[in-house]
Amino acid sequence: MSQSLICPDAFLSPLMIDEAVTRALAEDLGRAGDVTSIATIPADAIARAKVVAREAGVIAGLPLVATALRKLAPEIAIAAHARDGDRVAAKTVLMDVVGSARAVLGAERVALNLLGRLSGVATATHEFVRRVAGTRTRICCTRKTTPGLRALEKYAVRCGGGINHRFGLDDAILIKDNHIAVAGGIRSVLERAKACAGHLVKIEIEVDTLDQLDEVLAVGMADAVLLDNMSIDELRKAVAMVKERFVLEASGGITLDTIAAVAATGVDYASSGWITHSAPSLDVALDIEI
Amino acid sequence: MSQSLICPDAFLSPLMIDEAVTRALAEDLGRAGDVTSIATIPADAIARAKVVAREAGVIAGLPLVATALRKLAPEIAIAAHARDGDRVAAKTVLMDVVGSARAVLGAERVALNLLGRLSGVATATHEFVRRVAGTRTRICCTRKTTPGLRALEKYAVRCGGGINHRFGLDDAILIKDNHIAVAGGIRSVLERAKACAGHLVKIEIEVDTLDQLDEVLAVGMADAVLLDNMSIDELRKAVAMVKERFVLEASGGITLDTIAAVAATGVDYASSGWITHSAPSLDVALDIEI
Amino acid sequence: MSQSLICPDAFLSPLMIDEAVTRALAEDLGRAGDVTSIATIPADAIARAKVVAREAGVIAGLPLVATALRKLAPEIAIAAHARDGDRVAAKTVLMDVVGSARAVLGAERVALNLLGRLSGVATATHEFVRRVAGTRTRICCTRKTTPGLRALEKYAVRCGGGINHRFGLDDAILIKDNHIAVAGGIRSVLERAKACAGHLVKIEIEVDTLDQLDEVLAVGMADAVLLDNMSIDELRKAVAMVKERFVLEASGGITLDTIAAVAATGVDYASSGWITHSAPSLDVALDIEI
Amino acid sequence: MSQSLICPDAFLSPLMIDEAVTRALAEDLGRAGDVTSIATIPADAIARAKVVAREAGVIAGLPLVATALRKLAPEIAIAAHARDGDRVAAKTVLMDVVGSARAVLGAERVALNLLGRLSGVATATHEFVRRVAGTRTRICCTRKTTPGLRALEKYAVRCGGGINHRFGLDDAILIKDNHIAVAGGIRSVLERAKACAGHLVKIEIEVDTLDQLDEVLAVGMADAVLLDNMSIDELRKAVAMVKERFVLEASGGITLDTIAAVAATGVDYASSGWITHSAPSLDVALDIEI
Amino acid sequence: MSQSLICPDAFLSPLMIDEAVTRALAEDLGRAGDVTSIATIPADAIARAKVVAREAGVIAGLPLVATALRKLAPEIAIAAHARDGDRVAAKTVLMDVVGSARAVLGAERVALNLLGRLSGVATATHEFVRRVAGTRTRICCTRKTTPGLRALEKYAVRCGGGINHRFGLDDAILIKDNHIAVAGGIRSVLERAKACAGHLVKIEIEVDTLDQLDEVLAVGMADAVLLDNMSIDELRKAVAMVKERFVLEASGGITLDTIAAVAATGVDYASSGWITHSAPSLDVALDIEI
Amino acid sequence: MSQSLICPDAFLSPLMIDEAVTRALAEDLGRAGDVTSIATIPADAIARAKVVAREAGVIAGLPLVATALRKLAPEIAIAAHARDGDRVAAKTVLMDVVGSARAVLGAERVALNLLGRLSGVATATHEFVRRVAGTRTRICCTRKTTPGLRALEKYAVRCGGGINHRFGLDDAILIKDNHIAVAGGIRSVLERAKACAGHLVKIEIEVDTLDQLDEVLAVGMADAVLLDNMSIDELRKAVAMVKERFVLEASGGITLDTIAAVAATGVDYASSGWITHSAPSLDVALDIEI
Repeated sequence: MSQSLICPDAFLSPLMIDEAVTRALAEDLGRAGDVTSIATIPADAIARAKVVAREAGVIAGLPLVATALRKLAPEIAIAAHARDGDRVAAKTVLMDVVGSARAVLGAERVALNLLGRLSGVATATHEFVRRVAGTRTRICCTRKTTPGLRALEKYAVRCGGGINHRFGLDDAILIKDNHIAVAGGIRSVLERAKACAGHLVKIEIEVDTLDQLDEVLAVGMADAVLLDNMSIDELRKAVAMVKERFVLEASGGITLDTIAAVAATGVDYASSGWITHSAPSLDVALDIEI
Repeated sequence: MSQSLICPDAFLSPLMIDEAVTRALAEDLGRAGDVTSIATIPADAIARAKVVAREAGVIAGLPLVATALRKLAPEIAIAAHARDGDRVAAKTVLMDVVGSARAVLGAERVALNLLGRLSGVATATHEFVRRVAGTRTRICCTRKTTPGLRALEKYAVRCGGGINHRFGLDDAILIKDNHIAVAGGIRSVLERAKACAGHLVKIEIEVDTLDQLDEVLAVGMADAVLLDNMSIDELRKAVAMVKERFVLEASGGITLDTIAAVAATGVDYASSGWITHSAPSLDVALDIEI
Repeated sequence: MSQSLICPDAFLSPLMIDEAVTRALAEDLGRAGDVTSIATIPADAIARAKVVAREAGVIAGLPLVATALRKLAPEIAIAAHARDGDRVAAKTVLMDVVGSARAVLGAERVALNLLGRLSGVATATHEFVRRVAGTRTRICCTRKTTPGLRALEKYAVRCGGGINHRFGLDDAILIKDNHIAVAGGIRSVLERAKACAGHLVKIEIEVDTLDQLDEVLAVGMADAVLLDNMSIDELRKAVAMVKERFVLEASGGITLDTIAAVAATGVDYASSGWITHSAPSLDVALDIEI
Repeated sequence: MSQSLICPDAFLSPLMIDEAVTRALAEDLGRAGDVTSIATIPADAIARAKVVAREAGVIAGLPLVATALRKLAPEIAIAAHARDGDRVAAKTVLMDVVGSARAVLGAERVALNLLGRLSGVATATHEFVRRVAGTRTRICCTRKTTPGLRALEKYAVRCGGGINHRFGLDDAILIKDNHIAVAGGIRSVLERAKACAGHLVKIEIEVDTLDQLDEVLAVGMADAVLLDNMSIDELRKAVAMVKERFVLEASGGITLDTIAAVAATGVDYASSGWITHSAPSLDVALDIEI
Repeated sequence: MSQSLICPDAFLSPLMIDEAVTRALAEDLGRAGDVTSIATIPADAIARAKVVAREAGVIAGLPLVATALRKLAPEIAIAAHARDGDRVAAKTVLMDVVGSARAVLGAERVALNLLGRLSGVATATHEFVRRVAGTRTRICCTRKTTPGLRALEKYAVRCGGGINHRFGLDDAILIKDNHIAVAGGIRSVLERAKACAGHLVKIEIEVDTLDQLDEVLAVGMADAVLLDNMSIDELRKAVAMVKERFVLEASGGITLDTIAAVAATGVDYASSGWITHSAPSLDVALDIEI
Repeated sequence: MSQSLICPDAFLSPLMIDEAVTRALAEDLGRAGDVTSIATIPADAIARAKVVAREAGVIAGLPLVATALRKLAPEIAIAAHARDGDRVAAKTVLMDVVGSARAVLGAERVALNLLGRLSGVATATHEFVRRVAGTRTRICCTRKTTPGLRALEKYAVRCGGGINHRFGLDDAILIKDNHIAVAGGIRSVLERAKACAGHLVKIEIEVDTLDQLDEVLAVGMADAVLLDNMSIDELRKAVAMVKERFVLEASGGITLDTIAAVAATGVDYASSGWITHSAPSLDVALDIEI
């Protein structure tokens, strides 16, 4: 029923999990904790719960669910039936949990918010990935992520079979129109970038027209070219012009409707902000019996 | 062109703005900062920029935009042409900015990610609010928010004309099915809750059936009843049964398609998780001239 | 010898315990740790210690004591003989501890400062609670708490049998004289408050005179009325006027000497700032044998 | 009307003020801020306020009050009429404030909680200090402070004319009964301490009997001796025995009733835990006109 | 007397400066602040101070000095006579400062520790840079940095004219012997790396022998090759073999004595851990007149 | 092969270890973790590793190494063969480690950076300590430490057999030339210091000339005198003048070449900033087999 999409680099550091979960629990428990459960559930009541995907999708965030539960009840028993990166059908049970009812209820919303959001990103990514199967094109994300959750959302993109673009402004050089204008043109901006970049820093330059692409071809120095908001026809011409001298990334307004055509042009990457900034949450639930 | 929807309590504390922006900037600037701009833009270059709403919507997050820019360039000049809570047309200029080009480029993505996400929530909320105009029903949010951004998203809900539900588990008592089951029924759970709640803590109880609602009516003690996943017909009956003895909140699967019918039943509140967990970002941009 | 007063909602989240203890230990250990014990006690010396209440009182803070010890010596053995909320006689042994002598000595002052302060608050609260036994009046706290320790002190109030008032300014609406004045009177301020408050936010209004109370009765909309600094006679009249239409809270200058008379008037709540801002510490000690 | 007691070292670092106030404001404003004022006070309303000491006492904490107000309204106007360390009569106006009404109301409780608590400590300290006037004895504090507020409370002790004992376990060597027992006696423990202590670390040793004091006199090596729970008569003998070879500190159960007699014995210091752990708050208020 | 070496990307974000200085000041001021100055210098005394380089070197860290002073005295006047990246002679005055004497003395050690350490790194880097002048070889750093100061030390490397290697493990792929061994050889490890790396992630592989280099040449896929601990003769052969197909980095045991010979081989980069982990501080001082 | 130098007070609190390691790991793992190992090493691969001292020296930091490994792999097996403070020969194996290969590789650099730096400080300290063996002189450090690492470096000094000077400005009173000048001379400055200092605060005064020393002898009140930048001859005279009335500390430009002569003068302490601010790292390595 589930099929693993996980690429080997879908990985979250224990430090990052701990920090995200602690922050989210503090936000939800507030100053007095789960007052409803405290008032109505005995401290020693035990709950049996199932984490369930109510709709089909790609899962991301299970280690965060486990950590949220353990933060409130270290001794809780958890049996995972899926792993991040798995594609699952609707109604799949992802985890069985047995432990303190108060802890399960207290961690429920935090766990589901994290799991739902990250699985939403993974699922959206996978929708794109599916449509480019069999082509050379890979799907990548952008920096259009939820503030404070970037590393988690980039992880979810990997779980969905996508590739990460820059994690931040310091991750690589990406030259845009303003940089070109200020530096006085494509040759000059690339020379400046090259002079400053160490040998482990890649340089990508954004072009809006095939004329600009021509100029980049003349100058060289870039590792990749971002083709911004080009038509399918322009993309196809760009691929022909570049003949694999640079990595080519198509970007701007790519949707599930257009991605197959984009991939058919032969670009190496197609990037989408939508998969992180606007992907709907996956519907996940915690079915509890106390 | 813009019309203020802001209710007087749409308010963000300076401490919260500072914390959210610092965190988001640190995430994006990483360890080496905006290496592209540093390499290609002189330190003393000045940029003129416009913050623009590319599509129509309700704005939320402008104070965060201003703070992000000022964190990187304290002396930057900012002229705001809109306020949070304004409903604006596509292509509305929200802000004019003049200052350090490196700072503007360095803060751009953080500012837009915050503004786009919060305006997305405000706009989604307003879509619901529009559809209930003229009824007694008010739109409210849930705890299905982005981990780490709850207070900001709840603020965006207010900017969109919505009402906030609980900020966290400690904010009020909300009794759900599990609490009822463990406590041994509706009377018993309400008695326990009442015994523990101080005089400034409201009690809401979730019911799935009209029989349960009948029982709540018999017991009293609750301030509000959440009608979970009921049909339009059931909601109408519930309103008739309760005769304003309790506040009634409809919840579960309410969409833009169904909200008008829900409101027509006469419930006091309709709550939606979708407006926070799955609202698409509003398309906003920073048009820069250096 | 000990009798449990604990109400079921006396609860501290593990996150809060961890944060408070870490902060307090860091404050006391400073940059070089317990230099005296390091210089004079071998690293492998074992201590047996008893946590003792030197005077009678109500206990609050034992989980913090255990956490402080475990932070410095994870393997320490702790046997608790009392629970938070227990009323104990002088000389009651609350806990037996066996473990690293350096850790016990290093955590001693932090553990006792936390236990002494919180038990002081619980004991002071209980003194009030005892005097209202048999009446409808419940004792509640205020926001006059020690900065940085509010959630812990509110927990101690619950351990002492009291009820918590607002945890912060965002917890409920409490309208005071200045709000009334600015809004242009009681009707107007209550209308504004009602328009902004969600269905899970209670509204309390403070009145200084019976005439004001009369006005509140005419307007309605409030859930509770705070009777500020009224005489016993005024309180009695207020109760008669209100006839349970609102919850009534007496506040202002209530002492152990006056509380019985206040309760005899039939108010629902009597609130005291003294139990948190000025309660003396309970005398607790750690008797150590190495 | 006010008389400055401030000793030149009553000083709080700006970093510490900032941290304490930010923490306290966050605690009180919670996730939604001062909802009452937001709902009922216009954003541009201006308040005039007076910070008043309702009862006589020694003031400590005014810089924290100013910082709390400025955090919420950077442009607020503050005129201080007193300084920390001033002894003031009842009804003294300490500060005039003009600025955003919402900010004044939002910071009010935090400001008063800090000012009331620290002034309470300063006043309690001064009560002891007054009673030892004309003797060689100075009043000092202990480590029995409120967790998280130690540096602030030690500052308040200085404002009250007292002297600070250790700020933490790492501040000096203070040998107690357990250290003596484990090390095998007074000579041995002092030798160990001396061997480890650098030249800027003082050594104090606690003794319960005059026999122990005799032994310390024989060994030397200590800088100070803490006379624990001795009678007035024993203290007098101790002073005679020591003849200023060591600094002598009387400790244990010293009250306002006994302090004069303790000072008359000629000890150099008398230490009190009560001035920090159990001093009642000074009654301070913010009288506001909007 | 001073000559700027600064490359345009020597840049520190304001957030990073603030964080590093706050942390260092807190470490030095401790719980009671600069007790010596508080006791002996009046609060209103003004100091005139000069920040001086006692020995010749390359300066890095002046913005941190200014921030440290301003944190303790916001109104302090600072006139800078040098900029980070300047090479200065012994006894050069770098800054004139006029302001609160207590603040200048309180910030002195923190300011000098930061300036001395970072200038030490910049100066050490520049020593290497000088020796490769006129060659194609550039000097770069490693991850052998002081824990907690990496971004600052990498900045100092740039001030000294060096180039930054990876900021962290997530910055690029650098394949070492263990990775090769586990993956089953050079071809296989490069294939795995290539499959996972996005288009903005460079791949470098470390080789110990020319045979291994041969294999990398056969496989391709890498962007750079790290030649580990090779003799001058081997380096020369490697350059000849590679013919600019990859960037070549010489690493391992390179010293000021050997760097010229290394550069003469024609490698693109020579990396040194010594410039960050073992560079001596530059001797800087604050000459103060009060 | 190894010989323990550890003095009983070489101690690091668990809180401090946790904080330093978490911070260093976050710095190195960044936002995406060890991408190389994730791409090339299977998640379940096991590594056997040896922590080795490649050169002879004194070890400090092993508990930090263990914590770094455990943070990434809680179940890792660690067998320590040395303890902090041990003097070891080149090629000594300090620790055997068996566990997750990814965790070992991910923690490697952080572990070595901490161990190398602290062992470098310990070794440098011990070089001085060795040269004063048999004299009364003890080696002590200064506040010239790496910002953010002071407590760790002071610990390393103790591991090397040295004594700690002040941990911060609040640790003791150290009067320097500026304080003397402002206060109007040695008598006046010492009187002010004495008036403010509590009984557990030592007072040291810095003198540049024997005339100044004479004046200090006349005044008394100081516990220690720092002889700043004096010649060997002056130091000898100072010792003769003081006749053990004060502790004497020689400071300023003391090197491994001069330390024996300094010690021969009979001063009590010789302090060196070099051992913390400029000590080269000890060469340590992690030899890994996967």
